[in-house]
Amino acid sequence: MAETRQWQLASRPVGEPTHDNFELVTVDRPEPGPNEVLIKTLYQSVDPYMRGRMRDAESYAEPWDVGDPMQASVVGEVLESNSSRFESGDFVTGDLLWAEHIAADAGELQRVNPDHGPISTALGVLGMPGVTAYWGTTDVADPNPGDTVVVSAAAGAVGSVVGQLAKLSGARVVGTAGSEAKVDWLTEELGFDAAINYKETDDLSGAVDETCPNGVDVYFDNVGGPITDAVWPRLNVDARVAVCGQIALYNETQVPTGPRKLAKLIETRAKVEGLLVSDYQPRWGEALQRLSQFVQSGDIQYRENVVEGFENAPDAFLGLFEGENIGKQVVKVADRDE
Amino acid sequence: MAETRQWQLASRPVGEPTHDNFELVTVDRPEPGPNEVLIKTLYQSVDPYMRGRMRDAESYAEPWDVGDPMQASVVGEVLESNSSRFESGDFVTGDLLWAEHIAADAGELQRVNPDHGPISTALGVLGMPGVTAYWGTTDVADPNPGDTVVVSAAAGAVGSVVGQLAKLSGARVVGTAGSEAKVDWLTEELGFDAAINYKETDDLSGAVDETCPNGVDVYFDNVGGPITDAVWPRLNVDARVAVCGQIALYNETQVPTGPRKLAKLIETRAKVEGLLVSDYQPRWGEALQRLSQFVQSGDIQYRENVVEGFENAPDAFLGLFEGENIGKQVVKVADRDE
Repeated sequence: MAETRQWQLASRPVGEPTHDNFELVTVDRPEPGPNEVLIKTLYQSVDPYMRGRMRDAESYAEPWDVGDPMQASVVGEVLESNSSRFESGDFVTGDLLWAEHIAADAGELQRVNPDHGPISTALGVLGMPGVTAYWGTTDVADPNPGDTVVVSAAAGAVGSVVGQLAKLSGARVVGTAGSEAKVDWLTEELGFDAAINYKETDDLSGAVDETCPNGVDVYFDNVGGPITDAVWPRLNVDARVAVCGQIALYNETQVPTGPRKLAKLIETRAKVEGLLVSDYQPRWGEALQRLSQFVQSGDIQYRENVVEGFENAPDAFLGLFEGENIGKQVVKVADRDE
Repeated sequence: MAETRQWQLASRPVGEPTHDNFELVTVDRPEPGPNEVLIKTLYQSVDPYMRGRMRDAESYAEPWDVGDPMQASVVGEVLESNSSRFESGDFVTGDLLWAEHIAADAGELQRVNPDHGPISTALGVLGMPGVTAYWGTTDVADPNPGDTVVVSAAAGAVGSVVGQLAKLSGARVVGTAGSEAKVDWLTEELGFDAAINYKETDDLSGAVDETCPNGVDVYFDNVGGPITDAVWPRLNVDARVAVCGQIALYNETQVPTGPRKLAKLIETRAKVEGLLVSDYQPRWGEALQRLSQFVQSGDIQYRENVVEGFENAPDAFLGLFEGENIGKQVVKVADRDE
């Protein structure tokens, strides 16, 4: 019988995840049941929110069980189909597994059209991160022309799209990122008005002051921690804060502490709102359509950091916490034309 | 020439204010100018937000200058009038001074009708705290029938009105307060479903769990600090947090720290909003009209803690930080019928 490989959760991390938390297991290749298709994974996504699923605690996403394969968004090719919706050779995407071959119900899958661009974008700018950025910007952060918008993790899969959407709305956009290469990409290619390399800045507060002389009207937070602490005192009256991610805190072993932030909200009457893309499921297609137009017109640019090889998927995931990726971090699992 | 007394800011407090920060000064009684009236103060308000004005830092209210009389809401009687709007014997209220006699422009004053109830209520349930509670509840916190609403400083001037308004909207209401007498008032007279005496509770988190078995849909925060820390993890999906005051933190000399709170907002998509009553200036009358109706119908009850004597105004103010007041803290400066 044919075999395949999958990554299972070997143990729950304490603090920063390590390779010991992941186990590469060879299993029988699944047989597709009624209305199922067999998928060969071409690209697998790794995303910061997965850190939460390694924990043994209820949150917005259910925790993974130790000894089970982990879940991920995947783009793959249909090898066999028991569904009238798909045939062999089709490209599909869905919330599936860290696995090289997957049997999935046809109802869980969306078609990916390779004529519309690289199929891996279904994991990034034309996938969950793009949709997060789209609704997070247009529905929660709501930048107006002339507003100063600060985006943390601005060179990431979500932040890079948020910043470009904010520019399209006429705002002044400042990003934070962790390398000179990222800062250059933001300011020279994506049109950000300024960017702060937080790893090279002794004085984050000063850097925010300098790049945001009129204060901050919108803060789109992917990071939390010290960057957020530096932005907070510069919030303007009626500022909006969209809380999308807190990756700086995901590996903390204690309840993280920091400056108390609520008093500033009285002074500014700022509104702080958490954001979860799954709430926008009914409007997913609307976002994808707009994002596709922006990508085709060149108004939104994107990058991918492609980690080669399924065996390196944990490295790709761990790399997110080191900020190694410019743009969307994806794992290339196999070639299309095998 | 007749004299009068006023309280001046003698020095800026470091940490908890003390009597040394206040100086009682005898000055010439002012003469009302054109369109001004001379007011004899009957009641003076002391409010937690005044702590911010003792600081040398810009915030939503301008800092007081050392050596100047401090400002306060006042209810008084007109002694002399150079305005066609008021005549001697009228009762008025306005944002005036910590002073026994005040010359004020008629345009700064509102009339107080003594037939509508005790004139001191113009400083409490029918004044700034009442209006804060009204718009904070109806416009920001927005409780729905069946919601669990937690109000901190629930026996205070604002919190007691918030809780009763939330009950009127059909919510289940839990208050926090600092004495058994307050807890009894909340649960036995104001109709709160439960109340937590935070000073007698070793386990605030457990107390919130116990009194809010279905989590917290609305948190109206007057206090900040550990009480807020205990409520936060119990916020439900789509919860609303109205940040009205942070009295637990006003006397801190360092930037106060505490558990980081933003990640919880992603999990819950909760909305946190600061609230300042001055934003509702155009709708002040609307709130007062509704509050008057509720007070007259008995749907809203109130209490005042009256500190006798102008010389005791600093004590009344300092008492706010000890939680000595049930309901609105006011200073009785003089009798009506002098």
